[in-house]
Amino acid sequence: MENIPERKHDLLRKKIYIIIFRSDTPAGRGFDIALLILILLSIFSVALESVSEFRENYLGYIHFVEWTCTILFTIEYLLRIYVIHRPKQYIFSFYGLVDLVAFLPTYLSFLMAGTQFLVVVRAFRLLRVFRILKLSRFLSEGNILKQALQNSMHKIVVFLATVLTLVTIMGTIMYLIEGPDNGFESIPVAIYWAIVTITTVGYGDVSPQSPLGQFFASILMIMGYGIIAVPTGIVSVEMAKASELAKRRCPACRAPLSDSEAKFCAYCGVNLSDAEKHNADTAAQN
Amino acid sequence: MENIPERKHDLLRKKIYIIIFRSDTPAGRGFDIALLILILLSIFSVALESVSEFRENYLGYIHFVEWTCTILFTIEYLLRIYVIHRPKQYIFSFYGLVDLVAFLPTYLSFLMAGTQFLVVVRAFRLLRVFRILKLSRFLSEGNILKQALQNSMHKIVVFLATVLTLVTIMGTIMYLIEGPDNGFESIPVAIYWAIVTITTVGYGDVSPQSPLGQFFASILMIMGYGIIAVPTGIVSVEMAKASELAKRRCPACRAPLSDSEAKFCAYCGVNLSDAEKHNADTAAQN
Amino acid sequence: MENIPERKHDLLRKKIYIIIFRSDTPAGRGFDIALLILILLSIFSVALESVSEFRENYLGYIHFVEWTCTILFTIEYLLRIYVIHRPKQYIFSFYGLVDLVAFLPTYLSFLMAGTQFLVVVRAFRLLRVFRILKLSRFLSEGNILKQALQNSMHKIVVFLATVLTLVTIMGTIMYLIEGPDNGFESIPVAIYWAIVTITTVGYGDVSPQSPLGQFFASILMIMGYGIIAVPTGIVSVEMAKASELAKRRCPACRAPLSDSEAKFCAYCGVNLSDAEKHNADTAAQN
Amino acid sequence: MENIPERKHDLLRKKIYIIIFRSDTPAGRGFDIALLILILLSIFSVALESVSEFRENYLGYIHFVEWTCTILFTIEYLLRIYVIHRPKQYIFSFYGLVDLVAFLPTYLSFLMAGTQFLVVVRAFRLLRVFRILKLSRFLSEGNILKQALQNSMHKIVVFLATVLTLVTIMGTIMYLIEGPDNGFESIPVAIYWAIVTITTVGYGDVSPQSPLGQFFASILMIMGYGIIAVPTGIVSVEMAKASELAKRRCPACRAPLSDSEAKFCAYCGVNLSDAEKHNADTAAQN
Repeated sequence: MENIPERKHDLLRKKIYIIIFRSDTPAGRGFDIALLILILLSIFSVALESVSEFRENYLGYIHFVEWTCTILFTIEYLLRIYVIHRPKQYIFSFYGLVDLVAFLPTYLSFLMAGTQFLVVVRAFRLLRVFRILKLSRFLSEGNILKQALQNSMHKIVVFLATVLTLVTIMGTIMYLIEGPDNGFESIPVAIYWAIVTITTVGYGDVSPQSPLGQFFASILMIMGYGIIAVPTGIVSVEMAKASELAKRRCPACRAPLSDSEAKFCAYCGVNLSDAEKHNADTAAQN
Repeated sequence: MENIPERKHDLLRKKIYIIIFRSDTPAGRGFDIALLILILLSIFSVALESVSEFRENYLGYIHFVEWTCTILFTIEYLLRIYVIHRPKQYIFSFYGLVDLVAFLPTYLSFLMAGTQFLVVVRAFRLLRVFRILKLSRFLSEGNILKQALQNSMHKIVVFLATVLTLVTIMGTIMYLIEGPDNGFESIPVAIYWAIVTITTVGYGDVSPQSPLGQFFASILMIMGYGIIAVPTGIVSVEMAKASELAKRRCPACRAPLSDSEAKFCAYCGVNLSDAEKHNADTAAQN
Repeated sequence: MENIPERKHDLLRKKIYIIIFRSDTPAGRGFDIALLILILLSIFSVALESVSEFRENYLGYIHFVEWTCTILFTIEYLLRIYVIHRPKQYIFSFYGLVDLVAFLPTYLSFLMAGTQFLVVVRAFRLLRVFRILKLSRFLSEGNILKQALQNSMHKIVVFLATVLTLVTIMGTIMYLIEGPDNGFESIPVAIYWAIVTITTVGYGDVSPQSPLGQFFASILMIMGYGIIAVPTGIVSVEMAKASELAKRRCPACRAPLSDSEAKFCAYCGVNLSDAEKHNADTAAQN
Repeated sequence: MENIPERKHDLLRKKIYIIIFRSDTPAGRGFDIALLILILLSIFSVALESVSEFRENYLGYIHFVEWTCTILFTIEYLLRIYVIHRPKQYIFSFYGLVDLVAFLPTYLSFLMAGTQFLVVVRAFRLLRVFRILKLSRFLSEGNILKQALQNSMHKIVVFLATVLTLVTIMGTIMYLIEGPDNGFESIPVAIYWAIVTITTVGYGDVSPQSPLGQFFASILMIMGYGIIAVPTGIVSVEMAKASELAKRRCPACRAPLSDSEAKFCAYCGVNLSDAEKHNADTAAQN
């Protein structure tokens, strides 16, 4: 390796960089798809390992897949560090840690016995899928969702505070009404029941037995039925706004153009293609 | 049959064509309604056959209905091939296969023993209902729904990827917390539980027993409560857009006309009936 | 009674008419409230009668309330017929039948033994509440809801046809996968399970046991999760439209006035109070 | 205390007032955060006390936290009365009672044995969180939610009346169909089941066993599936309206400004900063 001249070395680095980071080239796209398959395969193998039948009969295959994925992830990680401009920044970034966590647990569980809990950490590999999707055409869609959620963050906090207060108070009331004999063993269990009820999940592992308890539970259910409308309303309005902002607008009067092929603005009558060209020119001059 | 002169033969073919394919004639409408009843009757009979009581006592009646429907569907299928212009295209089209599958399984199950699984395929007869509905006035309504879903496909893919990643990670965490002793037998079962929870179905066949598990389950439920708002927001916005586009518009300035009986455009003052007539004339000339 | 002179008789009839039918007078409002209380009391008594504890200990009280309500409902019914212009039309109208059904079952169950099923019919008394509400200020609100539902009827039919086809096909598939041993006793039961699942109710009385069944159930749940967005989208859009139409509009240019206290139209600059007065005058002349 | 001169006394009062009531000063913000932590800690301790394990092993710690919180809440309450202008109005206000209820039950349960039900009342401490949030930047967000709910109150009443009538009638029908042998012990229990079903909670503690019952339950579920769209539609529309009203508007023509950094109104062309300054001046003069 040390005999490769500097230039050739740089060229290799650049080539790898393009393969790993650029999804707009055939090689980059192929790399993305291969990585996607590898991630899903490794998650699948982690899931199957937990099924006792498979663990007993096919442990060899599962271990083979696991180690193959781990070694390939390790190579990919090292290559990323090798080709990137600022390796430190990458290593401590969110995706850098996710990439590290994708292979480290397998080595650790090999070295240290009884670290079964690391199986969880391997499931975080799935987060890598998002980086691959992010690099593709889903980017803009994801951004609208993200922006809609960010804009409604304040409303969501008020909403969550209300819901949590409601389930705490209703849970405490139900704990008194039903008590430990009817499955409401403690206030935390009663709050868990209230959350199960207000979110309309309704497992039925804890459920009111007394008439008074069923009456209060009915009130909570109807409340939950109405309350579920609030986040929906919040998100709908925010998405409508985000979608409104993404519309083509008249460069002259800023009115939204509902007709994306319009040639003249419906509000101020300006010739759209002229105005858009003019704006682009002005922007280029500044 | 070979003695019928060509012309008369063609006339018969045209007549059958009109009955089968045109729902705007009395005969065509009658055929549609008869077919609808036949399909629902056959589905009903398939369902009743699976109930042990009915199977033991009324098997004769059920078989009679099944064979009547099968023979009528066969005749209808052959007639469709007979009258249609390009039979091959029809046979391999979606509805062509659905039509074939509506009667073939009954013959097969008669010829080959132990093909009980073909009962499923007969249920696909129900899809034929959609063709009948499609031919009627529900067409445009269905299209708005379809377009709204198509437009939001990208957002739905991002949404599904997020939900599937969430249930995989939460399922794996819950598998570690609760373990096989509390019903979380394996990671796939734990992911199944997470889907049951996040969609607010909540069967209760698997439910968290430990305080920590109930705490994580509560978080997942509240997440699901909020996440359910996202598809609703997506579809609402898309339907609002589709509904906006379907509005009557001013032919002169393209502004949407909220008042469907307006005589003058509220935005540019043009006489609507004149402008619409002018546009129709222009369109006819091109 | 026959000694009352015609005029006085008519006056009495008019007075009763005002009390029963006009909720804008103090007597009419009092009558409405009294009737509302009576209806709720009688429903409450019907419900309590079904509870074995109350039936054993307080049957006397329950019967007293039941007979009091029945007799008062009978008197009210006769008075309605007495004062109304076209009694026949009333008797066979929807509310006429509801009024009749409010007292008839009690007499019938007294005369004929073993007519316990009539208890249901008495619950229909609750429908009378809607007439009372209809006469009050909730009228316009109810109309917006009603119109929104009517406008989206076509979309709802397409939606229901899709859901019913989906549950039939998924139910049949699950019947084959799980079979009678896992609780899916017949195709109707499997369809019932599919409805319980897709509507996110999830009783858990029937739930998939096999891995393949749980996989298909997961798909159905996620579908249901998305499908629930469709009626919400439909109703939201229709309600937005209905609410848009109910807005105050500029009498000159028909633009909606978002500011309900505006004095000038924001779109055409017309003086709103002048224009509204002018329109009212024109309408009065025609 | 009586030696402190009047002025100094007043200064102290003012200082305390600022700390307690003004969250825009560092001291006030610190007080708010400290109070928030104290409230959450005390709720946490109330919840843990109900868990038998904690009650047996850590009762000393729990009692210490409880009494510390109670004494601090008492001091805070007395200080509030001391510094406020109209103490009587505060004492009988909603938050005044909530503040009283935050410490009174602990003293009462110490003095009177067997007043375990007061544990509920202590959970109402959580409502105090809302005052703290109200004083902060979440105020405006909460108001939009509140106004949206208030505006749709009429629609919600009609909706609730419909739902309650539906569950009463469907519950009574199911009581007749299924009867006490299948868990539908009485009409109130059947109504409880109908609420559990229509809200899509679905515990499964009561569920239909007979085919006819499952058929009616399916209808109720699909109804609930559609009905859940109504509150969502109501709230979405109201939130869209509230959000529309909260938009920046042109001071000259009242048109909403979708572009929050616009310098000229898109509808009337007025210079926005000039017009806004002019309006502020006019407002200041009146």
